[in-house]
Amino acid sequence: MRIVPSSVERLIEELGKLPGVGPRTAERLAFHLLKTEPARAAALGAAVDGLHAGVRACRTCHNFAESDECAVCAAPNRERGLIAVVEEPFDVVAIEKTGLYYGLYHVLGGVISPIDGIGPDRLEIESLVARVENGGVGEIILATNPSLEGESTAMYIRGQLESTGVRLTRLARGLPVGGDLEYADQITLGRALQGRQSF
Amino acid sequence: MRIVPSSVERLIEELGKLPGVGPRTAERLAFHLLKTEPARAAALGAAVDGLHAGVRACRTCHNFAESDECAVCAAPNRERGLIAVVEEPFDVVAIEKTGLYYGLYHVLGGVISPIDGIGPDRLEIESLVARVENGGVGEIILATNPSLEGESTAMYIRGQLESTGVRLTRLARGLPVGGDLEYADQITLGRALQGRQSF
Repeated sequence: MRIVPSSVERLIEELGKLPGVGPRTAERLAFHLLKTEPARAAALGAAVDGLHAGVRACRTCHNFAESDECAVCAAPNRERGLIAVVEEPFDVVAIEKTGLYYGLYHVLGGVISPIDGIGPDRLEIESLVARVENGGVGEIILATNPSLEGESTAMYIRGQLESTGVRLTRLARGLPVGGDLEYADQITLGRALQGRQSF
Repeated sequence: MRIVPSSVERLIEELGKLPGVGPRTAERLAFHLLKTEPARAAALGAAVDGLHAGVRACRTCHNFAESDECAVCAAPNRERGLIAVVEEPFDVVAIEKTGLYYGLYHVLGGVISPIDGIGPDRLEIESLVARVENGGVGEIILATNPSLEGESTAMYIRGQLESTGVRLTRLARGLPVGGDLEYADQITLGRALQGRQSF
């Protein structure tokens, strides 16, 4: 006997596929949506339905865009000779939130990961080299994640760009702000020592 | 400048209205849906859209139903003289999960709550009295929540049903299984003492 109607079961199943949403949470969310006004559920459904339709990739930097160009590339006041190379559009959001970056971006669309079968050709590396070769770029900040894959990808890109003579930099490594020296891992602490700054 | 496309912002806003989903979680879920196949998001969207359409109230007990009668009322093997009165359809799900109940239900659709302006007339109490008056009901289990409102509602229903002579019972109060006596609240422990059983 099925106690929970199939439309509710189906929603529980779909919600349960989201990261960090277990079966109990999925059930709670589905029951909540069922309890509230149908209009509330309709608004959520429409938002989910419209998600991908409203988003494409910027033709220049491959960031999220609502038209051919993303908001950053289209902005008139950005420093166009400075490009931060990031893995995902979400990294653009994170850097923009700092309010401290004034250059452009280049979104790779991932990292080189042989285990997952992702080679350099699957990423927007060729288009990055083309942007640099087109001229006008003074500095490339390799802002991939401080992970094994992020590091390898940065190194691969360095190899591809070395001949262009563009200045290559990377994000500083060190202790996270608010972090505790005692609890920092050895590698981070080692990087913080190597990269110590005058005070 | 809007970094996050409006369709993504809209989804983050809608997800953020769900219980227990804060702005960070909403952002993470929206970004996840954006990253995965559009078909995955479409499946979720369709599930949310179809949620209410597939659900109505059982004409007898007001539980969730996919047709005129709910799965419990339509089942041939339930004890029809036993009715558990619960607040919400979710309580039916919880009781069914025990696998120990073989009677029918009556879903009130909430509890009497003067603060929220919910009087007895807003609940399915009249229809419960009518079910009992129609005959064939031997016992009513008042299975409202062990909260102030649940208790008051149970007492109100007792007042409405006393004249019918039907047997009225309620769920046992006591220590939760796996609970720790030391950490039980006074009232629960008091109820557990009063309701002690021979062993």
